[in-house]
Amino acid sequence: MADWRFGAGIWMFCQFVDRYATDAYGPPATTLDAIASAGEVEGLEVLDINYPFGDGIGVSDVREALARHNLSAQAITPHIYMREFARGAFTNPDPALRKRALDRCREGIEVARELGAKYVKFWPGQDGYDYPLQADYGWLWEQSVGAVRELANSAPDMQFAIEYKLKEPRTHMFFCNAATTILAIQDMGVDNVGVVLDVGHSLFAKETPAEALRLAHRFDRLASVEINDNWREWDDDLAAGSIHLVETLEVMLTLREIGWSEPLLLDQFPFRENPVAAARESIRTIRQLDALVDRIDREALADARRRQDALAAQRLVLDLLLT
Amino acid sequence: MADWRFGAGIWMFCQFVDRYATDAYGPPATTLDAIASAGEVEGLEVLDINYPFGDGIGVSDVREALARHNLSAQAITPHIYMREFARGAFTNPDPALRKRALDRCREGIEVARELGAKYVKFWPGQDGYDYPLQADYGWLWEQSVGAVRELANSAPDMQFAIEYKLKEPRTHMFFCNAATTILAIQDMGVDNVGVVLDVGHSLFAKETPAEALRLAHRFDRLASVEINDNWREWDDDLAAGSIHLVETLEVMLTLREIGWSEPLLLDQFPFRENPVAAARESIRTIRQLDALVDRIDREALADARRRQDALAAQRLVLDLLLT
Amino acid sequence: MADWRFGAGIWMFCQFVDRYATDAYGPPATTLDAIASAGEVEGLEVLDINYPFGDGIGVSDVREALARHNLSAQAITPHIYMREFARGAFTNPDPALRKRALDRCREGIEVARELGAKYVKFWPGQDGYDYPLQADYGWLWEQSVGAVRELANSAPDMQFAIEYKLKEPRTHMFFCNAATTILAIQDMGVDNVGVVLDVGHSLFAKETPAEALRLAHRFDRLASVEINDNWREWDDDLAAGSIHLVETLEVMLTLREIGWSEPLLLDQFPFRENPVAAARESIRTIRQLDALVDRIDREALADARRRQDALAAQRLVLDLLLT
Amino acid sequence: MADWRFGAGIWMFCQFVDRYATDAYGPPATTLDAIASAGEVEGLEVLDINYPFGDGIGVSDVREALARHNLSAQAITPHIYMREFARGAFTNPDPALRKRALDRCREGIEVARELGAKYVKFWPGQDGYDYPLQADYGWLWEQSVGAVRELANSAPDMQFAIEYKLKEPRTHMFFCNAATTILAIQDMGVDNVGVVLDVGHSLFAKETPAEALRLAHRFDRLASVEINDNWREWDDDLAAGSIHLVETLEVMLTLREIGWSEPLLLDQFPFRENPVAAARESIRTIRQLDALVDRIDREALADARRRQDALAAQRLVLDLLLT
Repeated sequence: MADWRFGAGIWMFCQFVDRYATDAYGPPATTLDAIASAGEVEGLEVLDINYPFGDGIGVSDVREALARHNLSAQAITPHIYMREFARGAFTNPDPALRKRALDRCREGIEVARELGAKYVKFWPGQDGYDYPLQADYGWLWEQSVGAVRELANSAPDMQFAIEYKLKEPRTHMFFCNAATTILAIQDMGVDNVGVVLDVGHSLFAKETPAEALRLAHRFDRLASVEINDNWREWDDDLAAGSIHLVETLEVMLTLREIGWSEPLLLDQFPFRENPVAAARESIRTIRQLDALVDRIDREALADARRRQDALAAQRLVLDLLLT
Repeated sequence: MADWRFGAGIWMFCQFVDRYATDAYGPPATTLDAIASAGEVEGLEVLDINYPFGDGIGVSDVREALARHNLSAQAITPHIYMREFARGAFTNPDPALRKRALDRCREGIEVARELGAKYVKFWPGQDGYDYPLQADYGWLWEQSVGAVRELANSAPDMQFAIEYKLKEPRTHMFFCNAATTILAIQDMGVDNVGVVLDVGHSLFAKETPAEALRLAHRFDRLASVEINDNWREWDDDLAAGSIHLVETLEVMLTLREIGWSEPLLLDQFPFRENPVAAARESIRTIRQLDALVDRIDREALADARRRQDALAAQRLVLDLLLT
Repeated sequence: MADWRFGAGIWMFCQFVDRYATDAYGPPATTLDAIASAGEVEGLEVLDINYPFGDGIGVSDVREALARHNLSAQAITPHIYMREFARGAFTNPDPALRKRALDRCREGIEVARELGAKYVKFWPGQDGYDYPLQADYGWLWEQSVGAVRELANSAPDMQFAIEYKLKEPRTHMFFCNAATTILAIQDMGVDNVGVVLDVGHSLFAKETPAEALRLAHRFDRLASVEINDNWREWDDDLAAGSIHLVETLEVMLTLREIGWSEPLLLDQFPFRENPVAAARESIRTIRQLDALVDRIDREALADARRRQDALAAQRLVLDLLLT
Repeated sequence: MADWRFGAGIWMFCQFVDRYATDAYGPPATTLDAIASAGEVEGLEVLDINYPFGDGIGVSDVREALARHNLSAQAITPHIYMREFARGAFTNPDPALRKRALDRCREGIEVARELGAKYVKFWPGQDGYDYPLQADYGWLWEQSVGAVRELANSAPDMQFAIEYKLKEPRTHMFFCNAATTILAIQDMGVDNVGVVLDVGHSLFAKETPAEALRLAHRFDRLASVEINDNWREWDDDLAAGSIHLVETLEVMLTLREIGWSEPLLLDQFPFRENPVAAARESIRTIRQLDALVDRIDREALADARRRQDALAAQRLVLDLLLT
């Protein structure tokens, strides 16, 4: 069994709203509250933390809270997808807002340094378009690629990661799938930008997550791995392995094959579940899957793959799962 | 050209949030503000109004606001999908909450009477399930069917309408598509419950909206028609005809064929657009489509359909659109 | 462990072609060859057999072949979706072809009697439409419902089953999902027509198969169950449990709950696999899943469902699968 | 109006089969028959021709037939996806078959030279996988990239084009979307390989075709454009503009913006329509859309895009279509 370390997006422990339950799904929770909740999850060691932290909470508060709960910052994700950036961060039609997005990211970089985070994550969820005919796709490329390039060049000591997603909140996001994001990063001509492989995002971008992992690894652009699940049409952010059990197992197997050793992060929105319990369950499932990886006859699997023998490959795993 | 009257869901003029822009997409708007905005939309005559109306706003306030803006209440839609009903309204595991949902609906019926609304709409968005294995599907049926039956029987003078949707906020909603909803209504054994055919919901339930319209009409269960558009995987609530232009035209044609004469309601979430402009544009598009219906050679179309001649049927309409 | 009996669609053992490999995926196989192949699958007892049987093969040949291989006919499925019915069987625009389709079905009924089959299955794969505007949906309903009603009334001693599917070969099939098919059957006003719940068809019609099973059972219309798997967008006809393992387990659990005792039929197209091996593997997987059902703490599951506790429900099953 | 030239895949005029109508949808048609049918389509000038041509038909026969019907060869597409390559061409587990696929392609290159075709197209439809766990994704990449690189290097005078598709006949094809294919081509390190942007393939790979066009153009890898339509879940190969009218218009607009001047090819499977009529209708629709492009207020559109004003951008086009 690999000695996986676990993390989570801090948002998992915050209060959720959606467009219907505008009065929210759970009690309010500040960044500090969320850190405290994360601290209750046995095995959870690192967090991906949104910046800004919220009213009146400073870096030192966060640092102390993390220390108090035996957690550390794995990533800082600047909030560039809230109200002011509703029409885009890097691709906002207003140059002043594009500048503000970059400033926000620069602050995030500084905070990442102060907290010792391993990378700064960009998730430009409002960058894209909603309707046919609406967008100048060339311009979207130039702005998106240009903005990340500029940020990456401004902080050569820092690692950056782009988390692609097909859609939501936009009906179409610019950084939409693994290959597009890798292509965009290559176009940036920088060394310190990689891809976050979020298993759920991969699933609903019509990718096979294990194949996307391989792709990012092949181009040396795998920056982080996030795990969750969904129904393939939307970013449902459900518990790990709850829908695509075998494909999540294939992800765990692939992580071994490529020698991944960074923490695995949970990215869930347990609207109707207890977040601490949801995190615990996902970690338990991932560990169980990882233990199964040890029991797979890897030589027999390689042989089945060489022959493209789907039934044999499946059988190796089904017998482990079902008996 | 048919003399269509138009309406809208009042939420279209309220403030939107989603799980990312928790600080909202536009300025706050009370029910009275939203009525005022709706009043700015030329051609908009009726509203589907959520109940409760919000802090400090009573039926008389709403009645006055409607009158002031030359609007009337077409429907009352009780809020049974907010925080307290996060685990379901009619199917909440807690009997006290199920009762509260019914009470809320009964208040909605009373309000509908007071405002002269044509129907009370149920959209039990939190009734369903998220995960495999989670639900007792038989129980969901009994509770959902039983609750609407009870309400319908309690107010035989009132018309009711169920708005089906495949998912969101649940990953699976109980009233998921047209046929399931009609079957459930038949199972209720009541005469005063029908279906809301929301074009967008139909599209992403893998239906053909014109066919679903026909189905509801065949069983005499068409209670209302809402129009919007989406990308077929999610309830994007975009402007009418923006994605599925020809299918929206087919809807308009079908509405003529079945002799529908009730107002057509807009159900949109213009997150990044001005709601008043969004409503105006949709009404303009629908009127343009309806004017095109007049120009379709209906006999030639009927003939093409009799022969199942897809190219001829398409050509009749494409030549109208493209020349 | 339930004492399941197994069957298969005979097509699983025939030669496959598709629109690319028009020179076929395997060697030619007559109906008698296919019966012989089916006979090699340990545990396979019954077949769903297409009629006509092919050149020079009569009922007595089939009867003998079945006997020789210890198989029996579970169903007869008339070929009403080949070349002559490319524009529809029950809904063909040509009345002569509609009549021919009914005649073909009547012959199928007679053959079913001669072979002692339990039901005659209708899969009107060419009945539907491909393009917007092409179809008169009302006429499709009348013809489809009318044709099956007429056949059912003509043979009150025989059980009939409709196998719904969302699409393929048409882009839209008339009998598209469980609820529509049940509604259509109710509209027929006959007692001897039911639904085939094909797990794969249910999955890509955006249903939850276990829920669709419950629905058909609730209306006393479950006629047969077929098992296979797919990627939710197309009828890939893959091996049982290969993609949706947990949902297939939920199907097996539901079959127990509703007391189903008829044979479970495989409906696969193993284009690149050995059909006999593919059938064996699927039967093995189904038996393993069924054995797991025995080990589920059903009381704990019922309790989790009562509380709508998704994490608890999942955990009960994940711990069985993963440890 | 641009002076578009038109072409078609020759398969459009051949006999179709699918896995149900194994006795085919139309009369048999040899390559020469198909060329004759193509010659009946007014405005059709070039063909994408499959090689081998079929029994007893040589290059000179094809050359003469093309000349007789005023057609020329635009592309040669080697048959590397029929029976012998059912488990893959470039990625077949059997090295002898991989070699045979390359040999077939080399013959295709030679034929392309003899017929003066502009490019050789690779559509490795059987290269990919069907099941989770089945494939060694790294090996698929190496074989696919390596094979095309080898072929491209062996014929530096020839242009090559890869036609990506998400799936079918495999449930997962290796060259699955635009970005993956561009990335793979860059990895080949060759100058004479580009991408075929098939509008339908783009649609069901969850791309926006106009954006994918821009992407291929940006990287100077656009080799050819094929037009058809589908329902976004499968490669239905329907008539141009029949489902996604506005998006097809956006494609036509983008082709102008990037200065594309090569022939536009139809790629359709009119199973139940007359192929000549289907081709005529698609050409008519494309020309009508192109004429509409002339009437779009391009400055106003650019302005709407700069402001990301979706309603304004849509309105510009809707008013052209609907009035």
